[in-house]
Amino acid sequence: MSEIVTAAMMVIGDEILSGRTKDKNIGHLADVMTAIGIDLKEVRIVPDEEDEIVAAVNALRTKYTYVFTTGGIGPTHDDITADSIAKAFGVPCDYDAKAYKMLEESYAARGLEYTEARKRMARMPVGADHIDNPVSLAPGFRIGNVHVMAGVPAIFQAMLDNVVPTLHGGAVMLSETVHCPYGEGTIGTQLGEIQKANPDTIIGSYPKYLDGKFWTELVVRSRSAESLAKAKGEVEAMLAAIATPA
Amino acid sequence: MSEIVTAAMMVIGDEILSGRTKDKNIGHLADVMTAIGIDLKEVRIVPDEEDEIVAAVNALRTKYTYVFTTGGIGPTHDDITADSIAKAFGVPCDYDAKAYKMLEESYAARGLEYTEARKRMARMPVGADHIDNPVSLAPGFRIGNVHVMAGVPAIFQAMLDNVVPTLHGGAVMLSETVHCPYGEGTIGTQLGEIQKANPDTIIGSYPKYLDGKFWTELVVRSRSAESLAKAKGEVEAMLAAIATPA
Repeated sequence: MSEIVTAAMMVIGDEILSGRTKDKNIGHLADVMTAIGIDLKEVRIVPDEEDEIVAAVNALRTKYTYVFTTGGIGPTHDDITADSIAKAFGVPCDYDAKAYKMLEESYAARGLEYTEARKRMARMPVGADHIDNPVSLAPGFRIGNVHVMAGVPAIFQAMLDNVVPTLHGGAVMLSETVHCPYGEGTIGTQLGEIQKANPDTIIGSYPKYLDGKFWTELVVRSRSAESLAKAKGEVEAMLAAIATPA
Repeated sequence: MSEIVTAAMMVIGDEILSGRTKDKNIGHLADVMTAIGIDLKEVRIVPDEEDEIVAAVNALRTKYTYVFTTGGIGPTHDDITADSIAKAFGVPCDYDAKAYKMLEESYAARGLEYTEARKRMARMPVGADHIDNPVSLAPGFRIGNVHVMAGVPAIFQAMLDNVVPTLHGGAVMLSETVHCPYGEGTIGTQLGEIQKANPDTIIGSYPKYLDGKFWTELVVRSRSAESLAKAKGEVEAMLAAIATPA
């Protein structure tokens, strides 16, 4: 049995919960995790409230190999992620000397005042490592198995690119998609039998509805190429039998 | 103080966590909740695993006024939402007589076999009420404060339209958006002071990054029109003072 590496994501921000901002980061993280063989097992979207962030990150970091957060690390009063993560780990949140100096020099070079708000972006839990931000400088951070990144998609994606090489991936989940021109009701019973006969695979059935007609996308997944090929063959044989009844 | 009505959402499905399907329902529910004065406070995306679904729905239904779920109510083996919700409530999951008959007649009228898979869509926790499905007939259901709906966006939205009139909304959260041409670092300190001076409002600051330039969307929210107008005025005065320094 291949090693299973798991992950959870925490999206932090009232603006997602109110509908004002539509999340674009969950789908991106999901794609990246799948590509490197890490199973994303849970996502939580939580408000900008310290108690909620602390409770969620503590629930997730003890259950999964990795946790990834987005949002709440900017300079304004509603950016409370760094403080909340520090609290969850029981460590102080303070100005990080390296981040403080880097931002100070950057603002000086641009002729901008190093305001209290801007200084906030240098705060992180004591003992955290930086996650470099090539877009707008202010770093994210990693503490334990928790990776804290920005919510702005361009910055989140750049930060995640810097995190991926540090992760220990698992065996990549292989997948094959089989187009099924029938609705789920037609194939559901037999598909369930194929799933039972192929316990080393995960067979997903995703109903699609377009212009009044149902069709189904069938996805067979496995960490074993042999198991995948066997199950896929059985799914295709099932569909062929429906198309040409005996 | 106005009554606060809260909600949580649970998105059920491996296909969202693997990145294969990009969720379109969270943003829609968030918009609808905001429009009717219900605070969406948390979203969880969970896999097609009974233990995970049971644990999440029990955590959410005891904490929030309403819970809304999407996904996992189709006819295939990976559709385990009805069984899981029944287990969470400690009641049997069985064929609902009304749903069973409705589907039976519909398939008969269309000359289609009423397969075991199709019959699965008539199963729900004993004691649940139907949520009508005008798109593809098979109903969702409500049990206690939990509303179980389809994952296909067109069906989810149609089901939600049928649920909304049954909900008890709170005082609608009013909001005003102020465009801020500066980055958060410029306005963060003063914005924090305005937030402190206006505790009856929630002031959100949403950094935007476009073509190498930062700007910020400031959103002032309150259930009181007077409080909202006062805080918005102070935000606008702050921006005017930056544009034209004394």
